[in-house]
Amino acid sequence: MAGSKFAYVKKFELPDALLPNMFMVFRLDGHSFHRFSDQHGFTKPNDLRALQLMDHAAKSVMEEYKDISLAFGESDEYSFLLRKSTALYNRRQAKIVSTLTSLFTSCYVFHWPKYFPDLPLQYPPSFDGRIVLYPSQQEVRDYFAWRQADTHINNLYNTVFWALVQQGGQTTTEAHATLRGTISKDKHEILFSRFEINYDKIDPRYRKGSVLVRVETPEAPALDSSAQVDVLSTIPDDSSKRKKARAVRTHLELLHCDLIRDEFWDKYAHLLEQHIVI
Amino acid sequence: MAGSKFAYVKKFELPDALLPNMFMVFRLDGHSFHRFSDQHGFTKPNDLRALQLMDHAAKSVMEEYKDISLAFGESDEYSFLLRKSTALYNRRQAKIVSTLTSLFTSCYVFHWPKYFPDLPLQYPPSFDGRIVLYPSQQEVRDYFAWRQADTHINNLYNTVFWALVQQGGQTTTEAHATLRGTISKDKHEILFSRFEINYDKIDPRYRKGSVLVRVETPEAPALDSSAQVDVLSTIPDDSSKRKKARAVRTHLELLHCDLIRDEFWDKYAHLLEQHIVI
Amino acid sequence: MAGSKFAYVKKFELPDALLPNMFMVFRLDGHSFHRFSDQHGFTKPNDLRALQLMDHAAKSVMEEYKDISLAFGESDEYSFLLRKSTALYNRRQAKIVSTLTSLFTSCYVFHWPKYFPDLPLQYPPSFDGRIVLYPSQQEVRDYFAWRQADTHINNLYNTVFWALVQQGGQTTTEAHATLRGTISKDKHEILFSRFEINYDKIDPRYRKGSVLVRVETPEAPALDSSAQVDVLSTIPDDSSKRKKARAVRTHLELLHCDLIRDEFWDKYAHLLEQHIVI
Amino acid sequence: MAGSKFAYVKKFELPDALLPNMFMVFRLDGHSFHRFSDQHGFTKPNDLRALQLMDHAAKSVMEEYKDISLAFGESDEYSFLLRKSTALYNRRQAKIVSTLTSLFTSCYVFHWPKYFPDLPLQYPPSFDGRIVLYPSQQEVRDYFAWRQADTHINNLYNTVFWALVQQGGQTTTEAHATLRGTISKDKHEILFSRFEINYDKIDPRYRKGSVLVRVETPEAPALDSSAQVDVLSTIPDDSSKRKKARAVRTHLELLHCDLIRDEFWDKYAHLLEQHIVI
Repeated sequence: MAGSKFAYVKKFELPDALLPNMFMVFRLDGHSFHRFSDQHGFTKPNDLRALQLMDHAAKSVMEEYKDISLAFGESDEYSFLLRKSTALYNRRQAKIVSTLTSLFTSCYVFHWPKYFPDLPLQYPPSFDGRIVLYPSQQEVRDYFAWRQADTHINNLYNTVFWALVQQGGQTTTEAHATLRGTISKDKHEILFSRFEINYDKIDPRYRKGSVLVRVETPEAPALDSSAQVDVLSTIPDDSSKRKKARAVRTHLELLHCDLIRDEFWDKYAHLLEQHIVI
Repeated sequence: MAGSKFAYVKKFELPDALLPNMFMVFRLDGHSFHRFSDQHGFTKPNDLRALQLMDHAAKSVMEEYKDISLAFGESDEYSFLLRKSTALYNRRQAKIVSTLTSLFTSCYVFHWPKYFPDLPLQYPPSFDGRIVLYPSQQEVRDYFAWRQADTHINNLYNTVFWALVQQGGQTTTEAHATLRGTISKDKHEILFSRFEINYDKIDPRYRKGSVLVRVETPEAPALDSSAQVDVLSTIPDDSSKRKKARAVRTHLELLHCDLIRDEFWDKYAHLLEQHIVI
Repeated sequence: MAGSKFAYVKKFELPDALLPNMFMVFRLDGHSFHRFSDQHGFTKPNDLRALQLMDHAAKSVMEEYKDISLAFGESDEYSFLLRKSTALYNRRQAKIVSTLTSLFTSCYVFHWPKYFPDLPLQYPPSFDGRIVLYPSQQEVRDYFAWRQADTHINNLYNTVFWALVQQGGQTTTEAHATLRGTISKDKHEILFSRFEINYDKIDPRYRKGSVLVRVETPEAPALDSSAQVDVLSTIPDDSSKRKKARAVRTHLELLHCDLIRDEFWDKYAHLLEQHIVI
Repeated sequence: MAGSKFAYVKKFELPDALLPNMFMVFRLDGHSFHRFSDQHGFTKPNDLRALQLMDHAAKSVMEEYKDISLAFGESDEYSFLLRKSTALYNRRQAKIVSTLTSLFTSCYVFHWPKYFPDLPLQYPPSFDGRIVLYPSQQEVRDYFAWRQADTHINNLYNTVFWALVQQGGQTTTEAHATLRGTISKDKHEILFSRFEINYDKIDPRYRKGSVLVRVETPEAPALDSSAQVDVLSTIPDDSSKRKKARAVRTHLELLHCDLIRDEFWDKYAHLLEQHIVI
């Protein structure tokens, strides 16, 4: 074969499978979205259209990859939880990272006109992605709590900041100075006393971010995709107590709820379970 | 800080810097492009518009990332060579793989209407990417030779196959059967004797693939981007003989030429050099 | 400094820290111990002195490295369990693997004369080591069960094999032939009917291997080493519920007991716990 | 099989092959050798017996592993260069690191009595090891230059320091104070003017460290080990210009020479070549 004497270069592609039975969190972030949001005139502190587009892209990714059970988005970032036992692309790291980042990006550009009908995309945006492995449910819960706590901190700051600028007439430099050294309580107070804004009444989408959960569709009449069955048969989760895989029909729900307290995790306990296919 | 008790989850993000002073080849491939090309009615054996769109996306990536000196594309894949001494994203693997894949994808979707003005994109396409490290110039040359030899083999097969089907009236099953066991010479012969096609006269774009080279623009009047200067100052290439970095203006040329023989590498020797900023 | 122009070569030492909060199992195996045991005339099927020397070396390693809570040995291999939260050498893989293998080897050679007083070591033996990460207690239990099941299978085979050779007068080729296709029950039967050996009465050291457990010494009067306290303060195990580290005095017990059933793990539950320093 | 339900734990052993065609440097260091040298009363600034024992252990390792072409030792550390094309243990990192560290350690303990006939080893010493990959000859040369420059700096300091203490009657604190801020020239001057020691006349073993080179034995009458032939046939070094492997007889030479200037590398150019089996 013509190419055979060059084929040795394939030997430099080393395997990069991720450890089995670990939760995978895939997180992506917008690349230079400060500039991107400026160029497209995103509303401050939050642009509803841009957030809805992020949610749409995330939903599309979850519809394509059934092993993602949960996702959380805020601003220009989104985190996805893959089931502990996923055999997606044989758990090859570069393949998973690049494919998921690519599909999200593609959906973002593809669906842009739906959310910005009068504003053409000025240039192609990009995202970067990474995978982090977690051994147990506790760490996964704490990961999502960490992101939501971050959402809270950023959104509270931005809400007051832009109120000072847009309604209070401060320059951005003045607004930063006003906020320097303030704690959460101070910021609530500024919002309420100066702008009559009760932060806790602000749309939970902005305060809590977006939560996409995969839930079982009742009365599932037929078998779901073969992909899920494959997954289960590839990597045994433990020695013996393997439940029979059930292939069920699922759908996605978009929530803007608390991820830190137990309530969510109690209600959606199946999201962290490894055996149940949902 | 509200999130501080959860911040320990960041400790699970392990460093993934790639070894210094190694050539990096970043290759991406279309995900399920067999289906994608069917759905969009790509011309067989080659769709000029689709190939030009790939080239456009690759060019955009190279315009953004100056440390890419060379790229080669065929069909739905593209390979990019990063300079040995690149400090792009501190050589973090997931960051580079995901960002480059993302930008390419974004450009592909963004520029689609230019190449398919009458055919709206049916659904968002995606790509997967990987990075392979090579220690020396010889392996890099052999890598690109490997891809171009692959282009030749595939294109020759596809050209005969679709001639048999489109002009010869064979079914695809019959065409595969006709080609079974044939060697290169036989395929040339079939093309010529049955269809009066001289394979060597076919557009070199299809026979050789697309080569994007970065070349220095003569009379560069001013300094180029600061990014290139940064790169050079971060990772010393050897102990002492460091040449003074020259920040020069460059542009990209699209070629459809041979990458296997010495001629190309002699002419564009700077592409494999580590010290010269181009 | 004289060496400074060469110091860039240090940049090629990439970080290799292992993921936090994972159980580490370190296993080592004798290198070419078939030859080694022949050269030193080890008794077949088991050489008590050689096994005791392995146990001694393993015990010395555990005395030096308090983060090892459990070890299991059979034949020329030994497995060590490091606590999930260990910060030993900042969890650097090569450092841990090489140091533990080195110390075990050193102890083996150093203590050889105690167990083979009349037989000088003929040449320096060596071992190879590796680390495997496990996310949960279940996998750690199954790992040790796997090794002990292996011990059982090998020892039963070897016991019958050497009985056939040593007492039954078979050649080794004949003995292998006799055992071909036999299942466990058959081997018990051969032992009992031909050699009046009740396998279940054989020294549990041979049937079960060696188990080294770290247990708390009652009435510990004083603080133990600072190393353990360091460990706990370095890598937080979870977000908030951190127990106060107790530095306690521990000692090692050598057992030859079942590791597969629950009894052992119920009794020594602390071995898999991450918070308790023992 | 009894163990089969536990065998899934093997899936957690991920591959760890090192990149092909890269030079491997394996370096090991004594673990807590400050304490070790104190306990065994090593002569200061250099203990000839201890250094000879290190050399002996290093030589044994090179006799066992023919793919090591060069080694350099100083104090309680030793670096080994493996041929670029070595297929040793399929280039598995943990296997190579642990085995080489283990064998060196074993030889050190085993041969101790030859060098310290009247001083029994007080406790088992240990070493840690690591592997660093280098893409080109230049970096390998610079690596060894870096280690020898380090040897020079340390030995010059120690020589003056111990002269001040042993002959000059200073306390160690005073000696450190005397040397604070001095440059190389000052140290030479102190040695010469106060103690009539011409540093350049000191045994090159102490000034230059130990260099072990593998050289071809003239008139080699027969084939060497099969291992070397295996190596060459496993990993092709380049596309086409592969020289025929010659299996030749080699031996080791111990030198105490300069590794920084070209002379050494010109004379022993074969040490860095990948094709020649020596």
